[in-house]
Order: sequence, then structure tokens, then C-alpha cells
Amino acid sequence: MSHNDSKMIILLGDGMGGRDVPSLGGKTCIEAANTPALDTLARLGSSGLMYLARPGQPIGSDTAHMALIGYDPFTQYRGRGPFEAKGVGLDMKPGDVAFRCNFSTVDAKGLIIDRRAGRIESGTDELAARIMEVCKDGIDGVQIFFKASVEHRAALVLRGEGLDYRVTDVDPHEIGVAPAKCAPRDDCPPEARKAAEKTAEVVNKFVAIAHEALDTHKVNQERRKAKLPPANVVLPRGAGEAVDLAPFSKIHDGLVGAMVVEVDLVRGLGLYAQMDVIDVNGATGGADTNEIAIARAVADHIGSYDLILCNIKAPDLGGHDSNALAKIAAIEKVDRAVAFLLDTLNWGNTTIMLGGDHCTPVTVGDHTGDAVPVVFYGHGVRSDLVEHYSEKEAGMGGIGQIAGADVIPLLRNFAGRIVKFGA
Amino acid sequence: MSHNDSKMIILLGDGMGGRDVPSLGGKTCIEAANTPALDTLARLGSSGLMYLARPGQPIGSDTAHMALIGYDPFTQYRGRGPFEAKGVGLDMKPGDVAFRCNFSTVDAKGLIIDRRAGRIESGTDELAARIMEVCKDGIDGVQIFFKASVEHRAALVLRGEGLDYRVTDVDPHEIGVAPAKCAPRDDCPPEARKAAEKTAEVVNKFVAIAHEALDTHKVNQERRKAKLPPANVVLPRGAGEAVDLAPFSKIHDGLVGAMVVEVDLVRGLGLYAQMDVIDVNGATGGADTNEIAIARAVADHIGSYDLILCNIKAPDLGGHDSNALAKIAAIEKVDRAVAFLLDTLNWGNTTIMLGGDHCTPVTVGDHTGDAVPVVFYGHGVRSDLVEHYSEKEAGMGGIGQIAGADVIPLLRNFAGRIVKFGA
Repeated sequence: MSHNDSKMIILLGDGMGGRDVPSLGGKTCIEAANTPALDTLARLGSSGLMYLARPGQPIGSDTAHMALIGYDPFTQYRGRGPFEAKGVGLDMKPGDVAFRCNFSTVDAKGLIIDRRAGRIESGTDELAARIMEVCKDGIDGVQIFFKASVEHRAALVLRGEGLDYRVTDVDPHEIGVAPAKCAPRDDCPPEARKAAEKTAEVVNKFVAIAHEALDTHKVNQERRKAKLPPANVVLPRGAGEAVDLAPFSKIHDGLVGAMVVEVDLVRGLGLYAQMDVIDVNGATGGADTNEIAIARAVADHIGSYDLILCNIKAPDLGGHDSNALAKIAAIEKVDRAVAFLLDTLNWGNTTIMLGGDHCTPVTVGDHTGDAVPVVFYGHGVRSDLVEHYSEKEAGMGGIGQIAGADVIPLLRNFAGRIVKFGA
Repeated sequence: MSHNDSKMIILLGDGMGGRDVPSLGGKTCIEAANTPALDTLARLGSSGLMYLARPGQPIGSDTAHMALIGYDPFTQYRGRGPFEAKGVGLDMKPGDVAFRCNFSTVDAKGLIIDRRAGRIESGTDELAARIMEVCKDGIDGVQIFFKASVEHRAALVLRGEGLDYRVTDVDPHEIGVAPAKCAPRDDCPPEARKAAEKTAEVVNKFVAIAHEALDTHKVNQERRKAKLPPANVVLPRGAGEAVDLAPFSKIHDGLVGAMVVEVDLVRGLGLYAQMDVIDVNGATGGADTNEIAIARAVADHIGSYDLILCNIKAPDLGGHDSNALAKIAAIEKVDRAVAFLLDTLNWGNTTIMLGGDHCTPVTVGDHTGDAVPVVFYGHGVRSDLVEHYSEKEAGMGGIGQIAGADVIPLLRNFAGRIVKFGA
């Protein structure tokens, strides 16, 4: 590896790619958005299509980011729970089982009426403290660790003998129904079944205990008064066991990496990879996030790192909500972040890859396995004939078709920071 | 997997891709053909380039279709013979060795003058019955099963102790020479050599016995009277052993698949994969095939299946015959089949992939490892900037470069019938 200090940035609009939207005259949200900075990257840089894992395979934010930073999700992924827990600040030991949780709302009959408790903005720390209090002696000999995160998000860790992570979600992912009963998953092997049954039983007891503790809690009494849905139930999902990832710097020949990300899921992956995670004031993970503060954090810290991965969550939210205007506005936020970086950084010494971690078309409302448009720009990147950043032009670009795992090697190549193989 | 009933179609023009043809002013046969329906797919859908197995690797129809429906030809292929035999209706047991055969014509000196006996259209069932009669006691203790198929095609199965499929072709694939002697293949391992030698000896005796039985047969006496080349020899090739394939529905999470195909080779693969195989009246496998009947069969049956693979053989014949006008006419048949489907199906609920299983350029007269142009159209497919279905435009499309194995995952992605990996 040549020892220069050229910098590398991966800037992702979460779920930014999409499909033709009839209400936009057949344009995608990226095409409909006003994106002068993204188009500058496309005009001066080199574009391509990225299938994160395999063509057609829809992929999560966690598995996509694993691929992007150099881990094989197909062999190394053990569920989202561990990343969420780590991102929230809950440590895990081998044998622990972790869950992503939502604070949600159930009605008097126990049916879910809001999976996100009205995207509750405050009070969840108090609710989490109450849950920890009632669970302080554990459940069936299993220790309980529970912590709230941003909005309705939280994480749960179970610690004890004989647990297994191959259990189903309590969150049914729909409203109008009761929370599901946790149970061993179909793919749970026979030898792990007893442990999975025990884990499921503890989870089901936890859900009941938490509901009792939350339903009449002061925070929820006040929410009811304010006509807000009470956060009166906790719905665990995405069970997983602690993963064992080699450090980012080790798998990339000593490169020092950091993350500027908004959501605990990706933040937790960064911590597992032993990357620094940089907090940004004003980064909310929502549609109201301060994209300039995020871009400034990248610019402020890139001098201390070889590579920074930055993820702006908002486009994915618009996609999941099937809200084209919200997604367009979020893409324009990503554009403004890029504009800030174009104005601020030394591009004789910096290379950026701009793209997404997966497509979240507003016409689908979920992740799809369509190709994500990507563009590389800056130091070392040759230009091509593409003029605009979009799903439809990217296929004509000079990068061709890549996988998520190709991004860092390509960035290192443009930066001149990768060793020649052969002579 | 979301439980919708969106339908998936793979429609292949066999050997449809090609190369620039000087007599067409440098156009390929696809470019020279009048293909308004294929161009509609390209204009409204998303195009790409497909290397079935590896870039540059020429591939057979059998190995290509294996890749397309989800099997790895490099590890699972055991020769074409078993597919042909199964396609013709000959069953196989473990240890059997199967061959594809041609009825061919040799002159008085024993030199081959027509490898397809003038593409003989009738009488082969009688000839096959005569062969079965003279072989009814077996050869050297090995049972003989022989059956005729469409035109000059037939299949042979040997059943007995100590056989091995690693033997060479009797068909020399050229005219003006004598049939080759069957012998162990160079890649036959030492421990299988004795079995391969025995197999080759039985095959050589079979060829001699069949020649004697056929040369003076009434069918051939009549052909000679009519100035048609007699089908007076059988040339086995493509020896193989029974393959063991997991059912199609098992490797694709319960999807129910069917085939509408013309040739026994692909038909046999479908049967091995435990797909339904739908027969079509008027599907001849030749240049005169009824493409509308084929398309109607797809439309009539798609309601009962999740996925139908349809192969129209004619373009490959034009390619092998180095007959550009025949190939163009065959491509226009594929176009008319697509036009019928465009008019007939509910495209809010259907996704199609249109392409080929390999290229058969008329300038080569055989399969090549060039990229095959493909286009996806229908439910879930975003558009790109490609306007015409052709080898030259497909590379600019929104699908990028795919392998044969990517086709079904991509179709399932567009149809919304594939599970997200990760969260």
C-alpha cells in the first residue's frame, strides 16, 4: 500500500434508490428531486449500479452495511438485535440474546393500534427505567437489560444459561392484531430447540410484565390526557446473538475508519467493527434531521480518519411510508449534504462514493433487491458520459455493476491506497 | 416471503443472441429483425446483459437452463444424455448411462452424408421399434432402451452392472467421415476406466447392430425411392448418468413452476426438476413452429403456476445453420409470441424476463460465450433509457450484467415474492 493520506468517504442516503412512480409521471423520486450536487458528482465522476449482495435479493440496512464495510452478511450475520443493543449502549456477552424493540400502543382489548406509539419523542427513558425496576430480579433466572433509544426505539438483552436466538418476533409488523407469541423459529435446529423454547418463554413473560408496568405509568397517563397514543407495550423482534467481527482496521490493512450515522442499527455495527462512531448534534434520524450538521461532522473529522461512512436515514422513511414527496425532500437533504462537502473538502485528496444501502421504493413501502445507483467522484476517479445521478442513467456509467463489497476496494484504488497483486 | 400471487415468466428465444453479420450491413439478426413487441419490452422495462455461467464461456442449452432455473451446472451437470432420455420418456435408474442420438445417413462406404437424415419427419417410431426388437436380449448382458423423439432425435439408455458415462461421442459432428468409435474419455479416472471401456464396447456394438437393422428397413427403402436420405445409422453422443436435482419448488421456497418447451433436452431437465411440462399442439421445435399456440399455452396455464419458463427453439436452428434470414424469421416468431402475451396477460400482476439461453451467431454456426441481451418488463420493473431490444443497447440498461442464476431472484424481487435478508 502506498502511504499517502488520501481520504475516502462513503455517503449513503438510506434506501435512496427506487422505482418509477406513477404520480411523478413515471419518474423515480431521485429523478423528481432537485439534486444539483448529486448531478455534479455524476457529471464529473463515474457511475454504476450496485447490488449489495446478489441481484434481486432484498437486503436490510444491517446486512447491507456489513457488505459495504467488508463483512460477508451471508456467513457473519446473526440477527439485528445485537447491533441495535450495541448501538443503544447495551453490552453483550457470548450466550446473550438481544432484540430490537418498539414502544407501541395496544388498546383495551390488547390489539396493536400504533406500532410506534405515535413516534413518541420523550419519556421513554423513564419508561425503560420502570421496566428495569420491575425486572431487577430477572425472569426465570435470566437477567434482563432494557434501554430506550431515539423515538419509539429500544433494545433488550437477555443473559443467562441455555438461551438461543432462533426465536420469532413478538412484533407482528401490522396493526389491529395482538402481539405475537414468541416461539422457536422453523429454522431452529433440534439441538437448540429447548434453549429457544426457554428464551421464548422469558420473552413472552417480559412482554406481559412490561405491559403491566407501562400501561398506568405517569408518562402514559399524560400522553392519554394529551390525546397521544400511550407507549404501553414493548414489542421485541430481530433476535440475535453476539457477533464476532474482525476489526475494520484489520480487514482493511490498517485503515482507520469512523461512522457518522443516525440509527442504532448501523451505529451498533460500527461499534462491533471497532470503528469510531461520531455523534452529531441535530442528527435526529428523522425527516427533520440537520443534514448540514451531519456533513460538517464528516468534514470536521475526516482529517483524523482514512475513511468515514455516513448514512442519512430520511430517504428510507419516505420509502417505507410510501410518501413520494417526503422521500424527494429527504433526497434533497442528501443533495445539500453533498453540496456542503463539495464546497468544503480538498478534492485533490478525497474520494467519495455516493449511493444507498438498498432501494426502498415508495411504490412498495419496503426494501427491494433492485440495483442502487452509485457514483464515485474526486481524487483518482475518471469521468464517464453520465450526466445525472439516477437509477436510469447509472447503468451507462464507467463503474459498471458492483456489489457492496466492491465499494471500499474501489475507493482505495482511486485513493491509491491498495496494494498491487502481482508484479 | 409476501404471499401475493404475482406471476413470473421466463421467455427464451433459444440461441437468440448473435454477432454483427456482414451481409446485414453489420447488424445482428436481432437488430435486422422487425421486433415491435421486444422493443416495447425494452422501452418500458429494464435491460441488461447476461452471461449464463461465466463471461466468455460458451454453454449448452442444458447447462444454460440449469443455471436459469437455479442449479449449478458446474457441479451438478452429468451430461446431456439423461435430460434427453427423460425428455423422450425413457426412465433412468442409478448406474444407467444415457445418450442423445441422431438418426443419420451413411453412404455405401459408411461415411456420414447427413447428420440429421434430412431432418426426417416420420417413420422414426418404426425404426426405433425395430432397434428394440433386435436388441431385446441386450448386448453383453447390458439392457438396451431406445426411443425416437421429434425429427431425427432419439435417446438411448444402457442398464447393467459396471457401466460408466465418461465415454466419447459416436457422432463426429461433421460429414464426410465415418462414425467415431466410442471410447473412454480422457477425463475418465483410472478407477472408472474398465467400466467406461465396457460401456464403449456395448455402444459400438449397438451402433453396428442398429445400422444393420435400419439400412434395409422398409421406411428407408421408401425414403430412397422418394430421393430422401435414409435414416440408416444411429449416432449416440452426450453420454451421461442420472442426475439428482432437488425439486424446483424446494430451492425456490415453494414456488410452483412449469415449462412450455419444445426440445426434449430442456423438457427432460424440467422433469428432473419436478416441474410440470406442458405440451403444446403445433410446437414443432422447428422453424415452422406455432409460436402463437406456444404463447397461448403460457397464458392459459400461468394462472396455475407461479412461474413458467418457455423456450422457442427456432432462432438456434437459424444460428446453427448460419442462415441469417432463417434466424431473423425465427426472432420475429419470438416477437409475435411476446406480442400475444402483451395483449393477453394482466401486467399489473405479471413480470417477464425475455432473453436467450446463449448466443448462436450465424457467423459462427455454434454457441458462443458472448453476453445475451435480456429485458425485464411488467409488475415492479422500473424503466431505463434503452429503446430497443438488441445486443448493442442492452449494455446501457438498468439491470446491469447478470448471470443465469440471477434471473429468478430478480423476477421474485420485482414480483415481491422474496424474503428480505436482514433488517
